[in-house]
Amino acid sequence: MPTTFTVKFDIASDPVEVPSGTMLTDAAQKAGIDINQPCGGQGRCGQCAVQVTSGKVRRRSTMRLTKDDVEQGFALACQTVVEGDVNVVVPPQEKIQEHLASAQVAAEVTVPPGYDFHSDQTIQLVPLTLTPPSMEDQTGDWSRVETALRLETGLEDFEVSLPILQKMPTVLREGEWEVTLILNLFDRPCSDGTAQVIDILPGTVSDEKPLWGVAVDIGTTTVKVMLVDLITGEGKAQAAEFNKQISRGEDVISRIIFASKEDGDEKLRDLVVETINELMSKACRRARTKPSQVYKAVISGNSTMIHLLLKIPTSSIRLAPFITVANTTPLLTAEEVGLNMHPQGVVDCLPGVASYVGADITAGVLSSGMDDTEKVTLFLDVGTNGETVLGSKDWLVTCACSAGPAFEGAGVLHGMRATTGAIDEVWINDETLEASWRVIGGEKPKGLCGSALISLLAEMLMTGIVNKAGNIDPNLDTPRTRNGSHGGEYVVAWADETQIGEDIVLTNVDVDNLIRTKAAIFAGFNVLADSVGIPLEMVEQVLIGGGFGKFINVEKAIQIGLLPDMPWERFQFLGNTSLKGSYLALLDQNARDRIAEIAGKMTYVELSADNRFFDDFTSAMFLPHTNMTLFPSIEERMKSKT
Amino acid sequence: MPTTFTVKFDIASDPVEVPSGTMLTDAAQKAGIDINQPCGGQGRCGQCAVQVTSGKVRRRSTMRLTKDDVEQGFALACQTVVEGDVNVVVPPQEKIQEHLASAQVAAEVTVPPGYDFHSDQTIQLVPLTLTPPSMEDQTGDWSRVETALRLETGLEDFEVSLPILQKMPTVLREGEWEVTLILNLFDRPCSDGTAQVIDILPGTVSDEKPLWGVAVDIGTTTVKVMLVDLITGEGKAQAAEFNKQISRGEDVISRIIFASKEDGDEKLRDLVVETINELMSKACRRARTKPSQVYKAVISGNSTMIHLLLKIPTSSIRLAPFITVANTTPLLTAEEVGLNMHPQGVVDCLPGVASYVGADITAGVLSSGMDDTEKVTLFLDVGTNGETVLGSKDWLVTCACSAGPAFEGAGVLHGMRATTGAIDEVWINDETLEASWRVIGGEKPKGLCGSALISLLAEMLMTGIVNKAGNIDPNLDTPRTRNGSHGGEYVVAWADETQIGEDIVLTNVDVDNLIRTKAAIFAGFNVLADSVGIPLEMVEQVLIGGGFGKFINVEKAIQIGLLPDMPWERFQFLGNTSLKGSYLALLDQNARDRIAEIAGKMTYVELSADNRFFDDFTSAMFLPHTNMTLFPSIEERMKSKT
Repeated sequence: MPTTFTVKFDIASDPVEVPSGTMLTDAAQKAGIDINQPCGGQGRCGQCAVQVTSGKVRRRSTMRLTKDDVEQGFALACQTVVEGDVNVVVPPQEKIQEHLASAQVAAEVTVPPGYDFHSDQTIQLVPLTLTPPSMEDQTGDWSRVETALRLETGLEDFEVSLPILQKMPTVLREGEWEVTLILNLFDRPCSDGTAQVIDILPGTVSDEKPLWGVAVDIGTTTVKVMLVDLITGEGKAQAAEFNKQISRGEDVISRIIFASKEDGDEKLRDLVVETINELMSKACRRARTKPSQVYKAVISGNSTMIHLLLKIPTSSIRLAPFITVANTTPLLTAEEVGLNMHPQGVVDCLPGVASYVGADITAGVLSSGMDDTEKVTLFLDVGTNGETVLGSKDWLVTCACSAGPAFEGAGVLHGMRATTGAIDEVWINDETLEASWRVIGGEKPKGLCGSALISLLAEMLMTGIVNKAGNIDPNLDTPRTRNGSHGGEYVVAWADETQIGEDIVLTNVDVDNLIRTKAAIFAGFNVLADSVGIPLEMVEQVLIGGGFGKFINVEKAIQIGLLPDMPWERFQFLGNTSLKGSYLALLDQNARDRIAEIAGKMTYVELSADNRFFDDFTSAMFLPHTNMTLFPSIEERMKSKT
Repeated sequence: MPTTFTVKFDIASDPVEVPSGTMLTDAAQKAGIDINQPCGGQGRCGQCAVQVTSGKVRRRSTMRLTKDDVEQGFALACQTVVEGDVNVVVPPQEKIQEHLASAQVAAEVTVPPGYDFHSDQTIQLVPLTLTPPSMEDQTGDWSRVETALRLETGLEDFEVSLPILQKMPTVLREGEWEVTLILNLFDRPCSDGTAQVIDILPGTVSDEKPLWGVAVDIGTTTVKVMLVDLITGEGKAQAAEFNKQISRGEDVISRIIFASKEDGDEKLRDLVVETINELMSKACRRARTKPSQVYKAVISGNSTMIHLLLKIPTSSIRLAPFITVANTTPLLTAEEVGLNMHPQGVVDCLPGVASYVGADITAGVLSSGMDDTEKVTLFLDVGTNGETVLGSKDWLVTCACSAGPAFEGAGVLHGMRATTGAIDEVWINDETLEASWRVIGGEKPKGLCGSALISLLAEMLMTGIVNKAGNIDPNLDTPRTRNGSHGGEYVVAWADETQIGEDIVLTNVDVDNLIRTKAAIFAGFNVLADSVGIPLEMVEQVLIGGGFGKFINVEKAIQIGLLPDMPWERFQFLGNTSLKGSYLALLDQNARDRIAEIAGKMTYVELSADNRFFDDFTSAMFLPHTNMTLFPSIEERMKSKT
């Protein structure tokens, strides 16, 4: 007779008795509570999280929970068994959604431990008390300030711009010879001891004086801004918005074409500058500060985005041999770029590697830490360009496999971006072939975002709705498969369940697009591994970055042959690695130096000139792959089904 | 019986026989030729110059002649005696005038010998032939250029601006991967191996490609521009014009007051920028080039002029304790300053020392060479500010004695600037007290410029028209002295001899003003000498710079007590030392470094805080001075008259 324990759920009227080892979901069922399990109890969606406030449980999996969450007693009800008398709090569904979202933000703004922001970041605030000039001491204003700066900072040379000299005499007298200088320490090879004066303000002020910086990630689709308190290193406010350039083309290629038209480059520049400025204003309002107190911006983004921001011509990026004008751009002032922050503030665009491996990837590699580990690491940015990096602290190779925008919702009939109303995960019942899904924001669905497309395709494959060659079987015993105007299709949601008033379907054409996309990505990292002579199974960790990457369901991505068949523990989701990289570069000059090193040492492999890529791509045009020995776990599971 | 020689004048019908030792003027008289001697045969005006084409003569003085002139046989007829049979050419009067003027221009543009312009000046032209990009070599445009630049120049780091990056891809393709870079080598402490890209042009070009720079001297009154071929080092064209700021005030003080009014600083900035731009256009037209091919400007001028050019506030210059905002300003681009040359061209404003010892003086000291000589040297800029420098290679002290604008024609009833129509030298007949004069341009006079005021005052003193205290005697036996509406006055020119239709006079009020001015200058260098404990007679050379200085008649300046009583040989006129200094700094980075050193090591003595100055000033309020032992040669001459 097994031991039994008492489980008390806060929202149930009575406690229940269950045997040791009972799953919390089953205990809840017994107590009359139906815990939401959209992923079907596979421990992957995180929606069944509960809080164990006392008593012993064992967690089989903590996927989607942070360390903090676990310390606070959170557990996935579908993955946690009872091993003592326990009290359990079931949070309202909205709370969980909110928590999952904020956990992602928190992960993005985590300050690496041990950083000394005062000495590691380049913006310095230096209060000076000056001796007023007299007939005995007729030193000019700037010399007087410079001498005091030397004494105060130990630095030797200071660069001052005309606008600062123009305001200097007024500020000195207004502050009655007490002033505060804002300096930027240069990051130049010869610059030990050189700083640039960004501003001079009347009065000396305490350390509490606001000193802000901003980390910016310019995505082709979304621009994100994080406002950072440069004194504490804290990310105080974030804001994200679609890149207004979308109105002039959804992907980089159409933007490059638009830019080459008359004034097109100027329009695109203005649109992205406007986007960033609106986001900065929003973030500043949230943090109760003003854009004029933002003294530095560190910007990451793909090479096209950086070129367009700076109105540098992009035509050569699009046409063979696909080259950038500049992978490294000079330090600029906010005034030159048009950003609405302090006009003399520093704008640092991070360096890229090639036309299709830009600063978003070098920043991503930094924030992933793969340039600092012995482990052979695969870094993936599963977006339109499908940038991939393979390597470790000793070497890095990279490629971009032009995956196409299918996973971002383009070229798929009901595809959409991962915003409110998008289905982001789909489950298909093995027996009934009925679909259930989760919608971002919880309302009625409008379409399918990238992560939904992956899980949908995987579920369709595992349930036999689609075959290895990507053909949907229209003759199954379910109304959900049928012949539509685009060939065979599967109905995910019926018209009356949606916001759009029509069935949300995945067509055979969509499936073909998705297969091409996943084949390109898979072929990409295969060629990379091959180019350095390393078998894929030697990869010790797979780090998935990019705004999109964080929503991918690994198991299902393996099932469709997008990710290699490896134990799940080797995969890690890093969130927006590009924004995180620019945030680190903003706060820590060593991180900034490391990004430059990463850009310098990465070897770029051009896939469009590589026959191996076409071979690998063709082989990957099956679900999961022509060569099933590459996907042993899937082969086994599919076999067990038949 | 003395030896006789034959003298043949080219314009006389017959040769004449004269005794050995006969003055050429007397020999000419005998041949029926009246050689023009406006200075009365004192050897000071240079107007009696003739050319001895063969035979032996002895020159007692060669004042107003250059070494070249003497080598070509030129001699002052009033100072040269016959010592053999000689042939003499008497040049037409206009020829002499022209020669005297052009000699001054030539002196200004002399290139110091031994300069290697290709290595000593900072603007470099680098032709590059690049390997076009290919699928095998996808290096970005700027990296490709940078690598080629490193190989070609041996330099390590290159700074590139946004406008250059923006045009780079087009230029590279237009030039079919042959391009020419224009570089500026930095003058920074840590800059070995750093250069700034100013422009990139399609096509490689030979060394004949035009590469221009411009030396600018912003005077309070006159702006001068010299267009320089940076490849040969030649000054190809000059242009000068009144500073358009004059319409907003004649001297620095009234300009500072105007600048402090609403938009006053902007208006003054625009006016001087307009002046420079017009002069550059004019010089470029003369040299058949375009302003866009001018890549560097080196600018000198007094501290107020530099502040106004850069729209830096000037109020603190005017009010005690009289300080500048900046004696050293950063390197700027033409775009920032508003100059109409290559927009990315470098603008280097030379460094000054104090509010009233500016870049015109540091540049002047450099071009005078006094910072490189063992001789104790006095350098004078006899203008409104009366800047004075005393020292040698080991030390330099400087002051400004606020002389006032009397010698520039302001505050004197018929004073005017040294332009066409100004009397620039006056002689008074000892017996008749009648005046004769020389007019710039040769036409009827309009007024008296500074050099005329000096010689007029001296002649009036030596002829007893004015006494030591500066009082004009109205009761002399001549219609030229009388009581006018401003007290006693002396008539230099009668109304019908003038362009202005009224008598040109010097009044007692004018004399008082001139005495105050000369007393301030004399007291200035006395205090300087005193401050370093050196008696004035230890000064081994007196170098006189400034556009005004070159016209001063030393003998007469000593007579009125403006210059110290020293042998004439110790005085040298250097012409526009400020323009010459900026020209040297443009061509030779060592010269530029020396100017910075000069500015750094000069000790500034503030006279307005110095009681010795007031004492010396009061003592100098006589003609030539209260203490006649300071002027032994004048004392003797005055004694011999009475």
